[in-house]
Amino acid sequence: MRAATVRDGEIVIEEHPDPVPGTGEVLVRVRAAGLNGADMMQRAGRYPAPPGSPEAIPGLELAGEVAALGPQAERFATGARAMAIVGGGGQAELAVVHERQLMPVPEPLSWPEAGALPEVFLTAHDALFTQADLRPGERLLVHGGSGGVGTAAIQLARLAGARVAATVRHEGARPAVAALGAEVLAPEDFAAHGPFDVVLELVGAGNLAENLQALATGGRVVVIGVQAGAKAELNLLALMGKRARIHGSTLRGRPLEEKALASRAVERELLPAFESGVLRVPVQETFPLEQAPAAYERFAAGGKHGKIVLTMD
Amino acid sequence: MRAATVRDGEIVIEEHPDPVPGTGEVLVRVRAAGLNGADMMQRAGRYPAPPGSPEAIPGLELAGEVAALGPQAERFATGARAMAIVGGGGQAELAVVHERQLMPVPEPLSWPEAGALPEVFLTAHDALFTQADLRPGERLLVHGGSGGVGTAAIQLARLAGARVAATVRHEGARPAVAALGAEVLAPEDFAAHGPFDVVLELVGAGNLAENLQALATGGRVVVIGVQAGAKAELNLLALMGKRARIHGSTLRGRPLEEKALASRAVERELLPAFESGVLRVPVQETFPLEQAPAAYERFAAGGKHGKIVLTMD
Repeated sequence: MRAATVRDGEIVIEEHPDPVPGTGEVLVRVRAAGLNGADMMQRAGRYPAPPGSPEAIPGLELAGEVAALGPQAERFATGARAMAIVGGGGQAELAVVHERQLMPVPEPLSWPEAGALPEVFLTAHDALFTQADLRPGERLLVHGGSGGVGTAAIQLARLAGARVAATVRHEGARPAVAALGAEVLAPEDFAAHGPFDVVLELVGAGNLAENLQALATGGRVVVIGVQAGAKAELNLLALMGKRARIHGSTLRGRPLEEKALASRAVERELLPAFESGVLRVPVQETFPLEQAPAAYERFAAGGKHGKIVLTMD
Repeated sequence: MRAATVRDGEIVIEEHPDPVPGTGEVLVRVRAAGLNGADMMQRAGRYPAPPGSPEAIPGLELAGEVAALGPQAERFATGARAMAIVGGGGQAELAVVHERQLMPVPEPLSWPEAGALPEVFLTAHDALFTQADLRPGERLLVHGGSGGVGTAAIQLARLAGARVAATVRHEGARPAVAALGAEVLAPEDFAAHGPFDVVLELVGAGNLAENLQALATGGRVVVIGVQAGAKAELNLLALMGKRARIHGSTLRGRPLEEKALASRAVERELLPAFESGVLRVPVQETFPLEQAPAAYERFAAGGKHGKIVLTMD
């Protein structure tokens, strides 16, 4: 099979041996695989794949057809449309996934939409509801509202009855974020628009002091992206005064059982809203697998609304 | 009535009008009132009393006899032994407390023990179980194990089946902390003794980086004391890698209903263990109210095991 491959800080397309599904695993003929921030870090050599994942093939999510079943795999029939988060290796023609991580693809979704769904919607769902316990009527602030996780989080929070504000760096991306139901704020003066019950930080440490300042009593900050910087001064007295908490989270390094639990929660709580068309997956642009290097450049350029997706015939 | 009073950064004993219990409130003839870190900050003018609390009379906890009932107060009979956290005003001969904050005093406890119980046991119980969700078998690290909250937290964590380590600055205080069931660590090398599932920070920001380093995956840091400094650099990537969270918490500023809920939880979950003698309140030294200035000096000198308590005849 052919796959996007990290070689010396570059993405190239290489031939790899076809993977073989083990017990409880499924071989998926990949039709689409979204790009994520972690892929950029892996390309730069700063985010090695977790144990058990292909070392050189990036890709944290995929959608495709079930091509073969390993021993005791029984949740999906051959030919079924399925999607999942994976520890790596999604950006390839074939991938092996444990059946407990796979979710059925809702009928209305195209392949690019399905291949761009798992990582950002699992991440946003876990951050908002499992970590931050966002409640109806609360106010959420999303830093980085126009990216994949940002557009997912805004939709999920609105679905759950929360009020949503979002900062968006690129002015051109603001109307589309507003159309998702968020009050769009400029990054430089968000703190004046609080208090917020939950802040979802997708940008970096630079906002930390103002996030605390803009937080409501009992507020929660969930940090899942730090591309603009990881270190900041924390004033613990301010944290105590707000009786606040700061979560750090990633999906990638979690064990199978936790990823499976997160997938079950999304299956149960979100897939019906994709079936009915209430939730959607914004896709900015698709690239055939052979053009993966260009897709990475497009991702890194920023200013996108929704996802960049690789497609495989 | 006479009361400890903050005047220009000093504690003096002054005469004040007797307080009058309002609806649902109880007048308590105070027999003992513990000192806490927040009293030191209030003495220095850095911790103003919350709205509704006496402005110049410090004291976050008290125990005494119910002297009179306000309209509709019905939980306690006149003469009953009761104790509570209060927003301020505990270090006086009389104090008014809402009956929903009052707890009955377990039979084995002396007045100084009862007057030293509420603040530190509510604080430790809330931090360990409500905030950090400490579980049986988990490892807890307490920074500042020999003070009031520290000795309470060690006992509660042991009672709940957790394993406990504690740092203690003053060498002389270490044997008593070990006798409570904690592995005693020197503050300078605790990080080598991880991983810890929960860290209770009673000292200050200086430990923050090493707390994160010593934290287990999914670990929780709860910060409720910062006397040794409030600001530190936080590495959000380290927080994400551990999928950890940092809580800041105080009891004092909470509304009546939250204090009442915390008191109900302690009543239900801890008072039976005081009745049976499994839990105890370490008291370092008692001072009559008239000697409050000396009590404050003793508290500020550090190196104590357990509480400093004012007593009223």
